Amino acid sequence: MFKEAESDPTLSQADFKAIEADLRVHLLNEQYRHLNTKDRSLLILVAGIDGAGKGDTVNLLNEWMDPRYVHTIAFPPPTKEDLAYPAARRFWLGLPPKGETGIVFGSGYTPLFAQAAKKKIDADVLEKQILFVRRYEANLVANGVQVIKLWFHLSREAQFKRTQEQLANPSTAWKVTKMDLQAQKKFAAIRQAGKIVIESTDASHAPWVIIPSADTALRTVRSVQAILQALMHPVGKVPPFHDPAAAPALKKQANPLEKLDYKAVLNKAEYDTQILQWQNRLAEVVRSKKFKKMSLAVVFEGADAAGKGGAIRRVTHAIDARQFNIMPVAAPSTTELSHPYLWRFWRNVPRHGRIAIFDRSWYGRVLVERVEKLIPRATWSRAYDEINDFEQQLTAQGVIVVKFWLAITPDEQLRRFREREHSPFKQFKITAEDWRNRKKSKAYAEAAKEMFAHTDTPHAPWNVLSANDKKHARVEVLKRIVLALEHAPG
Amino acid sequence: MFKEAESDPTLSQADFKAIEADLRVHLLNEQYRHLNTKDRSLLILVAGIDGAGKGDTVNLLNEWMDPRYVHTIAFPPPTKEDLAYPAARRFWLGLPPKGETGIVFGSGYTPLFAQAAKKKIDADVLEKQILFVRRYEANLVANGVQVIKLWFHLSREAQFKRTQEQLANPSTAWKVTKMDLQAQKKFAAIRQAGKIVIESTDASHAPWVIIPSADTALRTVRSVQAILQALMHPVGKVPPFHDPAAAPALKKQANPLEKLDYKAVLNKAEYDTQILQWQNRLAEVVRSKKFKKMSLAVVFEGADAAGKGGAIRRVTHAIDARQFNIMPVAAPSTTELSHPYLWRFWRNVPRHGRIAIFDRSWYGRVLVERVEKLIPRATWSRAYDEINDFEQQLTAQGVIVVKFWLAITPDEQLRRFREREHSPFKQFKITAEDWRNRKKSKAYAEAAKEMFAHTDTPHAPWNVLSANDKKHARVEVLKRIVLALEHAPG
Repeated sequence: MFKEAESDPTLSQADFKAIEADLRVHLLNEQYRHLNTKDRSLLILVAGIDGAGKGDTVNLLNEWMDPRYVHTIAFPPPTKEDLAYPAARRFWLGLPPKGETGIVFGSGYTPLFAQAAKKKIDADVLEKQILFVRRYEANLVANGVQVIKLWFHLSREAQFKRTQEQLANPSTAWKVTKMDLQAQKKFAAIRQAGKIVIESTDASHAPWVIIPSADTALRTVRSVQAILQALMHPVGKVPPFHDPAAAPALKKQANPLEKLDYKAVLNKAEYDTQILQWQNRLAEVVRSKKFKKMSLAVVFEGADAAGKGGAIRRVTHAIDARQFNIMPVAAPSTTELSHPYLWRFWRNVPRHGRIAIFDRSWYGRVLVERVEKLIPRATWSRAYDEINDFEQQLTAQGVIVVKFWLAITPDEQLRRFREREHSPFKQFKITAEDWRNRKKSKAYAEAAKEMFAHTDTPHAPWNVLSANDKKHARVEVLKRIVLALEHAPG
Repeated sequence: MFKEAESDPTLSQADFKAIEADLRVHLLNEQYRHLNTKDRSLLILVAGIDGAGKGDTVNLLNEWMDPRYVHTIAFPPPTKEDLAYPAARRFWLGLPPKGETGIVFGSGYTPLFAQAAKKKIDADVLEKQILFVRRYEANLVANGVQVIKLWFHLSREAQFKRTQEQLANPSTAWKVTKMDLQAQKKFAAIRQAGKIVIESTDASHAPWVIIPSADTALRTVRSVQAILQALMHPVGKVPPFHDPAAAPALKKQANPLEKLDYKAVLNKAEYDTQILQWQNRLAEVVRSKKFKKMSLAVVFEGADAAGKGGAIRRVTHAIDARQFNIMPVAAPSTTELSHPYLWRFWRNVPRHGRIAIFDRSWYGRVLVERVEKLIPRATWSRAYDEINDFEQQLTAQGVIVVKFWLAITPDEQLRRFREREHSPFKQFKITAEDWRNRKKSKAYAEAAKEMFAHTDTPHAPWNVLSANDKKHARVEVLKRIVLALEHAPG
């Protein structure tokens, strides 16, 4: 795999000069074409032997391309603030918008490299980290981010020579890092890590390209060629990734909407007692010491007029307003549309000690976007796995995810719509769209049924509740949130 | 001022019940009307005696209003990350979008309160902090954020009683903070601070409302009434704030464009030597220890085809790509439009150790927005002071602001436009809009002249350069950045 690169091939200055200008114009033109079509963004991952010239190459790319549309990000070890969120959040938030280019050092690969460089590799940990990276990349590529990965490589001798030459020159000595100097001693380990990582994460939709790096001219040409290749050739089909561990058990599931008891009711006295009791317990648990290391994400889905807003208020009533945030999910903005669809939810993931409430959510992908035919079947079919993966990443790092589906019967919905139309105080709540959606209720029910079957996971189960009686639904919502938090390991 | 509040007036439960429902519907309806018209956002500042019920009131507002469009933010003492930016940044980034409501605790008032509560007040510091707050508020209000400030007040005895009652009840004891307990001892100081702050920052466009807080019912009614008042009555004229210390000296200034030597040129040999020399010095200074406590913001303005892009590349060439960020400023997005116009620049202010390059900038307000009549005269006239204030806030906290105007003669512009049209490689750079803008060059020149007169400040001076010769301009750009950084106090 490293045979060519470790032979330290070179390109003569004459040969380089002969193609430099063309290569440069070509790259810039492709960048602008890309910027105009805005069909996807390009993410360039930069890795390799320390001291092989990654930094120099990236600086050169910023010079050859229009740097206004190139975003170069190094991910240093996570800060305390970073650690209060799921690990992937900062990688998501750093993604370039469509038409533009992101160049990243490290990113989500760092733990994988660290593990792969160990003398005694923990196979389970390695496997997990490989899976993490593969899913992340498949998700990005399927959602409009093209991914290309450059591995800068050279022989141990050439690395030594390059580093020494840089050190000897006062105008380049500052470029030599501690890591570069250690690379001689750790060469075998870095090489091994590269081999493992490349073999396990190379994919036609997110390919690794090994860049022979001993010679600056050749390193430059190969890097630019690899990027041109990516800019000129959109990715083909991304194979689906399906992790059984993140998905529901493959048993024949009953549709939870069918077995629902729509007659469940609470009388006023029961409601008054119970709602207060659960609100007090919620107030207590979100102020507990344990909760400072956790966070809570509550998802509300369901038919129009099912009472999501009312249920949300009964929850927030128990919490200090400084501790929660509500995200009402409507049609995405232009900025949101120019990123993978999970991006806007990653931006709203709660940090430890905080609560995020989603009034509608990422499930719009497999509900409204599917039913209204805003996306092709392949896109929403794939989304189940992407959503399971997203939720697994949240729950794996201390976010308790509680998902509600508030269900009402068609008759009850009709009654509520009419009531809204006639109440001067609720008119704003009913629009022509609500009536239009109502006509599509069969399609929505079908979408919901499939959604439950695919995303009712052990780590983030669905709570399907009858909301024909608002009191019953509100108490249930509070109760389930409280129990989820109380049962969470501290 | 506190006479009524310190008499601890009450409202009977019967009187409260009689108006509660109406008040609540009224508040919700006003919130929705606001949300639909999107003509402004509402910022509610919450302050007052500790233990007077600020938190309870804010929670109640979140319950009475639709909490999805209410953003409650407490600003704790700044973290290390916060301190790497100018102080006001986090207050700007927390502003609600138009149509929505923000409730903030503390915010930019915290240092002012702390100073005003001292036994020996430093009059100069106090004056500065008052000025900071007044400018901030005037800026917000003039740019679509309505501001209202609530001061929760009660007698010392009532504060003691309320705190003790809360402590005695297990379901409210958690609400009592250390500050609440200390308020008894520090009552006089807090009261004094309130008096000073209210007197010095009360304004018809950003009024303080004192809320008698001993009685929950009355506290609730008065708070809601104050907010209703704000929602129902848009702010009138905001008096201009003009700080001579932040503005250029009032001398008769020559138009720097007129005295410019457009004949300044460098030959290739001079250029090659000098550009390298300045690039090396730039590379050195941005890697220096001193720079870790500073940041650099470079602004590029000038006519189309003046060579901004080329100059930017000569700058970035000297810097590691991981250290800078370029913001190309085009028409604002919907999200940006729903915030005060400086908001998007606050989002891009560089943190310590980093470099932000603005390809066009906040000066669009007094250039393109003025010339294209996108805003009324009053708005752009006011913007000079707002911009000076913004730049002063940056420079006061370690951001070196270097502003360039690249000037070319009309003939040279024409020559470059034609060249662009005929170059297969530069065609993308010339559009119908460029030709259109060229016809307005007189209006732009007039706007630029006034801009220099109003914003050429000692802390952020304009560098007006002839760019008829690109080599000359590029060397000058690098030189002026380097000298600004080298001369900055470490």
